[in-house]
Amino acid sequence: MSPFSAATKQLQRRLGTRIVAMDEAARRDASFDSAKLPFLPAAVVRARQEADVGVTLKLANQHRVPVTTRGRGTTLTGAATPVRGGWVLDMLALDEVAIDADAGMAHAQGGATVAKIQRAAEASGWFYPPDPSSKEYCTIGGNIACNAGGMHGGKYGVTRDFVIALRGYLPTGEPVEWGTATKKFAAGFNLRDLWIGSEGMLGVVTGAVLKLIPRPAERWTLLTSFRDEAHALRSALALFRARVQPAICEFLDRGSVLCAERATGRVVFPGQSGRPVILLELAGSRAEVREQRAVVLGWAAAHATAHAAARSRADAEQLWAVRRKCSGAMFELGDAKLNEDIVVPMRNYVKFARFLRSLTRESGLHIPTFGHLADGNLHVNIMYHKAVPAECRAAEKAVRRLMETVVALGGSISGEHGIGLAKTPFLRIQHSPAQIRAMKAVKDALDPRGILNPGKMFELFEIWKHPRLEVKLPWDHK
Amino acid sequence: MSPFSAATKQLQRRLGTRIVAMDEAARRDASFDSAKLPFLPAAVVRARQEADVGVTLKLANQHRVPVTTRGRGTTLTGAATPVRGGWVLDMLALDEVAIDADAGMAHAQGGATVAKIQRAAEASGWFYPPDPSSKEYCTIGGNIACNAGGMHGGKYGVTRDFVIALRGYLPTGEPVEWGTATKKFAAGFNLRDLWIGSEGMLGVVTGAVLKLIPRPAERWTLLTSFRDEAHALRSALALFRARVQPAICEFLDRGSVLCAERATGRVVFPGQSGRPVILLELAGSRAEVREQRAVVLGWAAAHATAHAAARSRADAEQLWAVRRKCSGAMFELGDAKLNEDIVVPMRNYVKFARFLRSLTRESGLHIPTFGHLADGNLHVNIMYHKAVPAECRAAEKAVRRLMETVVALGGSISGEHGIGLAKTPFLRIQHSPAQIRAMKAVKDALDPRGILNPGKMFELFEIWKHPRLEVKLPWDHK
Repeated sequence: MSPFSAATKQLQRRLGTRIVAMDEAARRDASFDSAKLPFLPAAVVRARQEADVGVTLKLANQHRVPVTTRGRGTTLTGAATPVRGGWVLDMLALDEVAIDADAGMAHAQGGATVAKIQRAAEASGWFYPPDPSSKEYCTIGGNIACNAGGMHGGKYGVTRDFVIALRGYLPTGEPVEWGTATKKFAAGFNLRDLWIGSEGMLGVVTGAVLKLIPRPAERWTLLTSFRDEAHALRSALALFRARVQPAICEFLDRGSVLCAERATGRVVFPGQSGRPVILLELAGSRAEVREQRAVVLGWAAAHATAHAAARSRADAEQLWAVRRKCSGAMFELGDAKLNEDIVVPMRNYVKFARFLRSLTRESGLHIPTFGHLADGNLHVNIMYHKAVPAECRAAEKAVRRLMETVVALGGSISGEHGIGLAKTPFLRIQHSPAQIRAMKAVKDALDPRGILNPGKMFELFEIWKHPRLEVKLPWDHK
Repeated sequence: MSPFSAATKQLQRRLGTRIVAMDEAARRDASFDSAKLPFLPAAVVRARQEADVGVTLKLANQHRVPVTTRGRGTTLTGAATPVRGGWVLDMLALDEVAIDADAGMAHAQGGATVAKIQRAAEASGWFYPPDPSSKEYCTIGGNIACNAGGMHGGKYGVTRDFVIALRGYLPTGEPVEWGTATKKFAAGFNLRDLWIGSEGMLGVVTGAVLKLIPRPAERWTLLTSFRDEAHALRSALALFRARVQPAICEFLDRGSVLCAERATGRVVFPGQSGRPVILLELAGSRAEVREQRAVVLGWAAAHATAHAAARSRADAEQLWAVRRKCSGAMFELGDAKLNEDIVVPMRNYVKFARFLRSLTRESGLHIPTFGHLADGNLHVNIMYHKAVPAECRAAEKAVRRLMETVVALGGSISGEHGIGLAKTPFLRIQHSPAQIRAMKAVKDALDPRGILNPGKMFELFEIWKHPRLEVKLPWDHK
């Protein structure tokens, strides 16, 4: 019998069996997220109304039941894994979206997918830029929890830059609203932004007001290839120096390009096979795109080994499809991946490319890397075979060296995934003891009984020592 | 003898008499800010190095000495007033600014003025948009403390939107860094944004990394006049509906226009004297401005009683000079002002204009109003004579009704000034008891001895009951 079964029965009496599910299938489905580390919860609470969240948290506090909030579970860090059991609070049914077309704001419930919000915005001539690659699946609540980014971050910013107001529940079950549906708000401490990126540990978001921007009238996509990685990164710097702000500036190193080519069976850039590429998109008004296009073409002619503009949106879409394939395709290089979304300051791009080359050589592993050059958020993928102990050790050593190097270069151990379980071994590389003490003090202040998403961020969890489920998820791109 | 004199002597021994000033003149100068409410501190600590801040706070904790951080003291809310005495921590000497032109970032110490940062950015082809009207005087530390805005907020955002990373000291005196000089950061709780807008109560900012945007190549200014306030506000909505994002969209009601006309001795808009106006500025690339200009001219022809574009930057500068004069000129209507920087959602602009008309009638006071229409941040100025008890009572009643109405309309009691002392009577109109409890819990967690800027935000202070100094400050626009 579960240690929380008396409390769970009580919750079931309060909310009904339709909302509080204790059956094996429901619990198993909620036992893991994209990190694929299974921990069985005592029950799954499928909130139907926002008030259900308050009821659940109040009772959880009384009985000290751990509560892990969950959207679609696309997180790669294990942030939605119920490591302490207890209740999983499933937000998917709270998925309403409404657009305020005059104010340029979206009102969304926490369980709405990012794609649903984007489509609703576009139907009104507006645009919601944050676009994690799982956007068809992942929820805005989850995006807020980890401050999700995506390819558009360099020009437009990340989730935080688009959150105007939040409503939801404190860990104690009290309803709160942080901010109003206005563009300015300077009344009281800003707990809105403290919630954003707090990975479901400081509150539960039931609704958000999001800022929209005018939908770009024009988009233009250019594929460029380079002699080697250092050259590609140096060239990107030259572009930014010319004050060009591409909406997207995606880099794929040689390893990522080869993965994409194997996965799709076609050459990414005919005549440039195996060369690192940068995929650029300009977006804005017609006039703005025209103006920047001339600068970009001059830049490409000067720096790239070759460049080719997409002739149509369909053509562009094919280029982006290739980019999206590369991540899944990496499993040909190993059956296990440490996917690290580190950030490096621009000034150290070339140094970092050199470091990656030496890390690959020393570890003997494949480490294909791609990512968002306009904000330095690179996805470093350390591939290994989990049945080969030497590769496991090499991967563990490599990820630690990666994190130490990133921080030494003035960067961040995570740009958009967060800490969850996967990055707990590195938190202390990024943050001083005083910084961590301050964070924990805030946690204790808002969640005195420690019920909300316990076991995350501050407690050591070495993900490479835990067996992972062999499941394929819809957003795995495989 | 001051109750903190033993501790002050100790601090003086640690930092020297050049840094720790106890003389009458220094203490008097630091005893008030723009709210002009004098409270004498025991000493003024003029930090020369960032580490001086840590030394001061550590000792303050040991001896429970209140510490109030101060930039230039331009705050209108009294947030920098040392109401509990103790030490004023003067940040003005920490004023270094360096631009990272490649990354588009400014590195500034807390005491640097906003104008200094803007000038340094512009010299490198970059732009720092937040522009409180006191920008020649106010410091970035103070701007961060109250999350300052300005006229550019609607298009570009406020201070928070431009802060990439902060360094400084916890109330306990421990050094911390929140974020790195990168555009993405998702590692640990976001205490950076908790600090922003916390009005010097949760930490002391010694340095900031700020995001810059490419300097607009083109600006275009248009003056428009309208039949009445409701018509002007309704027209602004029509402009936003056309997806035009003016860099500035300043509204001056009839009362503000008349003040500006009396102060400058010239008519704001020849032939339209006494009519409410909207002053618009488009900014961006040449192509972008050209595109939007056509839309704006069509809009003005359809909605305004008259419109006129500035023929030159000097011409435009004169228009902005008139706008800046109106606030100071209001003292012809009363010798006391309750200046409230409320925010109203766009959908309720016309309702709010109607409310202001009835408030003016019922209170019998002049309530000239101007502000930033692109973000709903209006400055409502309740003018009265402090020697006339009936006017004082009417002003107190009017400000309370204003705040209740603003919140009922879905708005905010402050958009860019913050709470400080002046808005403490209204905090509970905006925030529920649970929200305030959460804020106070965070305060207690980070400042267990309650030494940093005590007496602000949560404690009732009725500013209209306190005598104010009769001093003229350089940024008073009089």
